[in-house]
Amino acid sequence: MPDTQWTLHPDRFFDPDPAQRAVARELYATVADLPLVCPHGHVDPRLFVAEDASFGTPADLLIIPDHYVFRMLYSQGIPLEVLGVPRRDGGPIEPDHRKIWQTFAENFHLFRGTPSGIWLQQELIEVFGVAEKLCGATAQAIYDQIAAQLASPEFTPRKLFERFNIEVLCTTDAASDNLAHHQAIRDSGWSGVVRPTFRPDAVVNLDAPNWRANVEALGAAVGYEVNSYGKLIRALEERRAFFKHMGARATDHAVLTAYTGELAPREADAIFQRALQGAVTSQDAARFTGHMLMEMARMSIEDGLVMQMHVGAFRNHNEAIFARFGPDKGCDIPIATEFTHNLRPLLAKYGNDTRLTLVLFTLDEDTYSRELAPLAGHYPALKLGPPWWFHDSLAGMRRYFERVMETAGLHNTAGFNDDTRAFPSIPARHDVWRRACANWVAGLVVRHIVEMDDAQEMVLDLAYRLAKQVYKL
Amino acid sequence: MPDTQWTLHPDRFFDPDPAQRAVARELYATVADLPLVCPHGHVDPRLFVAEDASFGTPADLLIIPDHYVFRMLYSQGIPLEVLGVPRRDGGPIEPDHRKIWQTFAENFHLFRGTPSGIWLQQELIEVFGVAEKLCGATAQAIYDQIAAQLASPEFTPRKLFERFNIEVLCTTDAASDNLAHHQAIRDSGWSGVVRPTFRPDAVVNLDAPNWRANVEALGAAVGYEVNSYGKLIRALEERRAFFKHMGARATDHAVLTAYTGELAPREADAIFQRALQGAVTSQDAARFTGHMLMEMARMSIEDGLVMQMHVGAFRNHNEAIFARFGPDKGCDIPIATEFTHNLRPLLAKYGNDTRLTLVLFTLDEDTYSRELAPLAGHYPALKLGPPWWFHDSLAGMRRYFERVMETAGLHNTAGFNDDTRAFPSIPARHDVWRRACANWVAGLVVRHIVEMDDAQEMVLDLAYRLAKQVYKL
Amino acid sequence: MPDTQWTLHPDRFFDPDPAQRAVARELYATVADLPLVCPHGHVDPRLFVAEDASFGTPADLLIIPDHYVFRMLYSQGIPLEVLGVPRRDGGPIEPDHRKIWQTFAENFHLFRGTPSGIWLQQELIEVFGVAEKLCGATAQAIYDQIAAQLASPEFTPRKLFERFNIEVLCTTDAASDNLAHHQAIRDSGWSGVVRPTFRPDAVVNLDAPNWRANVEALGAAVGYEVNSYGKLIRALEERRAFFKHMGARATDHAVLTAYTGELAPREADAIFQRALQGAVTSQDAARFTGHMLMEMARMSIEDGLVMQMHVGAFRNHNEAIFARFGPDKGCDIPIATEFTHNLRPLLAKYGNDTRLTLVLFTLDEDTYSRELAPLAGHYPALKLGPPWWFHDSLAGMRRYFERVMETAGLHNTAGFNDDTRAFPSIPARHDVWRRACANWVAGLVVRHIVEMDDAQEMVLDLAYRLAKQVYKL
Repeated sequence: MPDTQWTLHPDRFFDPDPAQRAVARELYATVADLPLVCPHGHVDPRLFVAEDASFGTPADLLIIPDHYVFRMLYSQGIPLEVLGVPRRDGGPIEPDHRKIWQTFAENFHLFRGTPSGIWLQQELIEVFGVAEKLCGATAQAIYDQIAAQLASPEFTPRKLFERFNIEVLCTTDAASDNLAHHQAIRDSGWSGVVRPTFRPDAVVNLDAPNWRANVEALGAAVGYEVNSYGKLIRALEERRAFFKHMGARATDHAVLTAYTGELAPREADAIFQRALQGAVTSQDAARFTGHMLMEMARMSIEDGLVMQMHVGAFRNHNEAIFARFGPDKGCDIPIATEFTHNLRPLLAKYGNDTRLTLVLFTLDEDTYSRELAPLAGHYPALKLGPPWWFHDSLAGMRRYFERVMETAGLHNTAGFNDDTRAFPSIPARHDVWRRACANWVAGLVVRHIVEMDDAQEMVLDLAYRLAKQVYKL
Repeated sequence: MPDTQWTLHPDRFFDPDPAQRAVARELYATVADLPLVCPHGHVDPRLFVAEDASFGTPADLLIIPDHYVFRMLYSQGIPLEVLGVPRRDGGPIEPDHRKIWQTFAENFHLFRGTPSGIWLQQELIEVFGVAEKLCGATAQAIYDQIAAQLASPEFTPRKLFERFNIEVLCTTDAASDNLAHHQAIRDSGWSGVVRPTFRPDAVVNLDAPNWRANVEALGAAVGYEVNSYGKLIRALEERRAFFKHMGARATDHAVLTAYTGELAPREADAIFQRALQGAVTSQDAARFTGHMLMEMARMSIEDGLVMQMHVGAFRNHNEAIFARFGPDKGCDIPIATEFTHNLRPLLAKYGNDTRLTLVLFTLDEDTYSRELAPLAGHYPALKLGPPWWFHDSLAGMRRYFERVMETAGLHNTAGFNDDTRAFPSIPARHDVWRRACANWVAGLVVRHIVEMDDAQEMVLDLAYRLAKQVYKL
Repeated sequence: MPDTQWTLHPDRFFDPDPAQRAVARELYATVADLPLVCPHGHVDPRLFVAEDASFGTPADLLIIPDHYVFRMLYSQGIPLEVLGVPRRDGGPIEPDHRKIWQTFAENFHLFRGTPSGIWLQQELIEVFGVAEKLCGATAQAIYDQIAAQLASPEFTPRKLFERFNIEVLCTTDAASDNLAHHQAIRDSGWSGVVRPTFRPDAVVNLDAPNWRANVEALGAAVGYEVNSYGKLIRALEERRAFFKHMGARATDHAVLTAYTGELAPREADAIFQRALQGAVTSQDAARFTGHMLMEMARMSIEDGLVMQMHVGAFRNHNEAIFARFGPDKGCDIPIATEFTHNLRPLLAKYGNDTRLTLVLFTLDEDTYSRELAPLAGHYPALKLGPPWWFHDSLAGMRRYFERVMETAGLHNTAGFNDDTRAFPSIPARHDVWRRACANWVAGLVVRHIVEMDDAQEMVLDLAYRLAKQVYKL
């Protein structure tokens, strides 16, 4: 039964043309084994606090926390309860992780041709040594194999971090976070480099869920009540200083639109007071967020933290799923995004300042060639982040290279980041990127657009150097 | 003169790379001869009522009713009258079908590289056995050849239906239609399967041309005056039941935007009354349509009919052409389309219900990766229809595969439909799709993204199984 | 040191597949040496007035006036002053052109994979015979080589015009321009064909910088005060007649949106009077521009001048750069564009008139397949211009072919124009287009979509004939 054997082809993801493939292979070989630089992602720092931390069961590791995986199963009518996704109300869900795994395996064909399918296959083969194709028939044996490995001392998060050759891993943390896990990692004397990232959305977006409580948490973190706009600014500045002290190199801002615009301090405070009184309008909230982005750019110029903006995800589009299971359950849907008008106030004030690094991420690929590449190809402060979320895929990367690079130029992009909460998928994600880069550049070489010495520099930039440079790592 | 000989290359539309081509050829061979499943289209059911029905002249068959063909000639300055397109006022048009054919043949170079050119060539060669390239010099001889065949008993619509190996053909029919032709086909004892589709646009869109008369026709069909919103709902439910009884598997809804939103019954009735009095505003009409889409989803859950939405065609953009020749004259132009916000009310109410199948079609390809694939990759009720209209082409299909499949997954798409009123083009259209599918999947195989056994399943799904499953055929 | 040798590969930009490459090479050979037809661009006609005119230094020629070049350097933090870009206030800038050249050469890696990099390399090699790769180490020697050639009688603008085999070069000129340089070229007896193009934006867009002064200049040109809407129309008609007399074949209109709509003459005059009084609103200006586009179409029908619309550039997005250096400094950024609704009034009135030729250009590639190709594939008056500005690149051309041609058909496009102010880049730009065309059509040939005889016609149309036909050259 040869078709049940699972292998990774050494030339996978390269174009079939022999000339291009040969060049791609040669270029890829120069970066394949470089350390992984992870400037943005959502891995839980708690994983690395204790030397003997565990990932749990195979379902705990690969299914239950991964919205890429369970959204696809859900789209085909499999309830999230059946997949073990915890309910907010604590109601019953499938308790048997072997059954969850069986359901997943029986539906693994749904992932044909998807990035999740690619990552999962590579994880299972490379991280866990699975040799048979995952399907209903092989599910339980593979479960046993993974479970046994997860129980071994070689499969702790720290050991995998080292095995994965991660040079630095940046997490994403709330503004009010005391970064105790980060402190514990430092205190432990472990050599792995894990850095926090300052994400103040929960207090800066006035319409964030539980905003009032978030502001109180911020107040608790700084030791005074955040009851005015002025106090908010002061608190954020203090927290940024603390994050920077704890190793942070960047901030992150998730916004529905790219709107920026400055408010007079009095106006900002008036909106803030209305928010405290629970009387904020959605227009107030949008204007306040737009103003705070300007303030964040100002602070970045002052403290040197790189500023990231992730724009255009309509969060929790499916109300019923949000009500039952909470956020991050595979139902965030992109919207059309406008940058040219929206970013202009921020860029007018700070875009020419070389002390600022603003990395933009979009879910609207139409903005690649129309707005983002021209903007990044002009403003010194701007860089474009790699293909984000749904577009972190082979075809998505191809579109990104083709629609961004000619206008923006390679050096106005920010390399790769895996942006994942699925820790064991990190090597597979970087490998897809490195192969995609090598293949794209090889396409330029065989078309005689760039020469081989330039090509080697380009692949090295894309695979490793740009992320380090842009994020100051 | 070898360049006047016309042949169809057995490897046409496959990538030139020998490795990919070999795999594409192998995959294509497994689906090339499967029966054709046609879940959506505009073929006139009258064609199949009489055993000896005729298609008329070559111009009647291939030019006069085909807006894909005459729009291209019109764009180059050839008046529609010269092409024999009937005028609303009955004014003079070219009466000589040989002259119309000559004009078409002399301008056949305009179709180089277009899907119409591909379909026409394949029809002429495979259906009519034309062996010389169509041009001014060969026009009349080819006209003779086609005319002679159309006069033979082997070229009736029924005979071609059988020769084309059509498993099922769904038509599109007004809500008030008595489906007499469908009944006659059934009564005739012919074995061909022709099913109606319920399309209520003419009564549900309050700003449809002749809306008042359409409502009266609906009333005549149900046997009572449709003079209230409640009666409209009742009439539509009754007509759906009748269509279902007559074999319908689906409904179809053509809308300018994807706006959905529920009205209170009293509000819906107030708008309906204003419409009856001729006092409806365009905003009223938009809100009413958005409400009726919600009602149609509800009814689909109740009666099991698959719901199709075709979104984003600005109909009859050219007023002068519409005034002179009527609708469907090649001047419907797409507009930018928004799904994420617009569909949310419908999806909030019905999107998690696995009894609903809602198939979406777009003319705005930017929504493929930005909105539609993420939506279909999450909501159980949603499926994406194949590339529609202008995008039903080789490059259009390539963009669809590349921008949809990684995020939505194959199983959240709905296979192919030809959506044509040009009956003899049906085999060519399915063949283009099957070749495009085989070639796309072959590209995944040679890049080692999917293995050959998975690839075979994928091509079979795309070419045949998904359309049957999604449309319950 | 082989990697410092610079050569142009004869098969550059062709696909690596040997079959496609062979066909591309064969097709390209049939058009490679055809004369260059340049129907739209921004070359300064003064260059051709005197037989011994000079281009200045290498920096004067290749860096200081080329916003494609210095925007990329600026985006990486190099001040425009360092690149010798003149300041509006006459303030200090780098005076040493050798230093400017050195900065450029040391950063030449920024242009890897960009169209500017491709053009510059080809110019340096083919026009100036540079044999070593440009970098910091070779900068001064290459500077010497170019400077020496620019000083020789073989490198005057006229000599290069002839060497480049330019059949016709159209410039872009203000409505008030007396075309003295064009007259001087004609009077000189030189055989080169240089034609003006009528661009009335400065007086037709009421919010143009210095609008009042522009109107006065127009008045000076016609010999009467332009103090009413009626006088404006009369003046524009007179100037169009003068331009036509001076050889113009076309007009050009740069607009932020494609909005068109007719005003009553009284309303147009009221807005014009408000503008004269400095009291025009941005809405007034938009409506006036939309009306004037209608008037320009009317005049084009009357006088036969081809009408060009360049839509969607947000000019001078970077206020600080505009204030310091003026317009055209690499900070014009595209915006999303809508044609279907916006062009409808103009098309309703003039779109069916075969006397009108309206060539559309977009910076929003999403409109290619969604709006522009369907519009051009229907309306007799419409043609699509080639990929514009940021999209005048290899990948940009590929997207254009793939998203436009299937729906619009080749004959509803307008061939190529280089749209450049960088005169010595003209041959490289046309060469990229001709190679891209040959490669795209070769892709159709090896996929058996078109046959070789058709392919040869298509490449000839794209490379040469369409531009001549559409622009009546």
